[in-house]
Amino acid sequence: MTKPNLQVALDNNTLASALADVREVGPIVDIVEAGTILILQEGDQAVKALRALFPNKTVIADTKCADAGGTVAKNMADAGADWMTCICSATIPTMKAAAKEIGEIQVELYGNWTKEDAQSWLDAGISQAIYHQSRDALLSGGSWGEKDLNKVKTLVDMGFRVSVTGGLKPEVLPLFKGVNVYTFIAGRAITQAADPAAAAQQFQDEIVRIWGK
Amino acid sequence: MTKPNLQVALDNNTLASALADVREVGPIVDIVEAGTILILQEGDQAVKALRALFPNKTVIADTKCADAGGTVAKNMADAGADWMTCICSATIPTMKAAAKEIGEIQVELYGNWTKEDAQSWLDAGISQAIYHQSRDALLSGGSWGEKDLNKVKTLVDMGFRVSVTGGLKPEVLPLFKGVNVYTFIAGRAITQAADPAAAAQQFQDEIVRIWGK
Repeated sequence: MTKPNLQVALDNNTLASALADVREVGPIVDIVEAGTILILQEGDQAVKALRALFPNKTVIADTKCADAGGTVAKNMADAGADWMTCICSATIPTMKAAAKEIGEIQVELYGNWTKEDAQSWLDAGISQAIYHQSRDALLSGGSWGEKDLNKVKTLVDMGFRVSVTGGLKPEVLPLFKGVNVYTFIAGRAITQAADPAAAAQQFQDEIVRIWGK
Repeated sequence: MTKPNLQVALDNNTLASALADVREVGPIVDIVEAGTILILQEGDQAVKALRALFPNKTVIADTKCADAGGTVAKNMADAGADWMTCICSATIPTMKAAAKEIGEIQVELYGNWTKEDAQSWLDAGISQAIYHQSRDALLSGGSWGEKDLNKVKTLVDMGFRVSVTGGLKPEVLPLFKGVNVYTFIAGRAITQAADPAAAAQQFQDEIVRIWGK
């Protein structure tokens, strides 16, 4: 199996706060994400700042784009994003329009979606998906379980590179052993740690321990 | 029937362009919307600017929020938005968390959603929905039809105040005659008209002609 990537999600309310959080952990992670909250607050400046700070990392704009895919993707690519997220309930024309304008589209999975939907994304040339435990669902008591793992495995078997996110901590990673996860996305588990750089390194070490280099 | 509202959606790439577009039409419409594209580019400044310019209009932040509802809603309310949109694939905890922080939530309908989903939104105290012809779907040849009208009527009968949007022009409005539409949302049909103020007034006149004052 390939070593899964580690992605830090910056869901700050201000760019200054995001930059303070990413300063130490950016060099340790593989992928830096301008979170939805941050982009909605600061606009494309958030993406531009991360591009400028981390020219050699993958930068993601977590727009959760639902419509006007071409415009949003062009704007985010212009700001320096490599990849951008679309919400799973976006139409195929939206996803295709977005995919034309930016390196890659990642489909963010929330609510009702079917295996047929997933196949239609693959058929449209979109092969990244993000399996998301909703933050609000987690706050309401949800957690990772067999049902989630089976959905992730199904997507991997279909041919998706699957990122997983939502309430991840290093001690949760062994749950995914044997699953070809593409990327683990962590936010506050890294940025709000007493020592964020150590927390990011702990994720990376645990990933290498389980999946190899 | 109550006269439907007219809402202008500002989906500009820059705040300056949005302000140029809204300057003349803001006073004519009932509701001013900071569009998703605009918020993703300019952040909450877009909402703050519209609030400052139109203190007595309803201001909507079209965030299409999919997660972290409480944070996004608080941020948008702080910026001055009266209402905010959530994507239909957001979880109920996300919508409830958002609804606590801002005047009202509007559920934006894309992709797969069921009558059971709609009932669960009502049960959560959310009674506004936006029936959306996707811009990209319209570009691919879709258009308003009986199927759309029946879905809108079903939502109205369930107790939703329903906004409709996507490719609307004054000459399309008679299609909705007899349907208790809450708000018609138009973007470029107003802002890109040769005379935007006249276009907005033409919408309002047609609304009054069909639904009365």
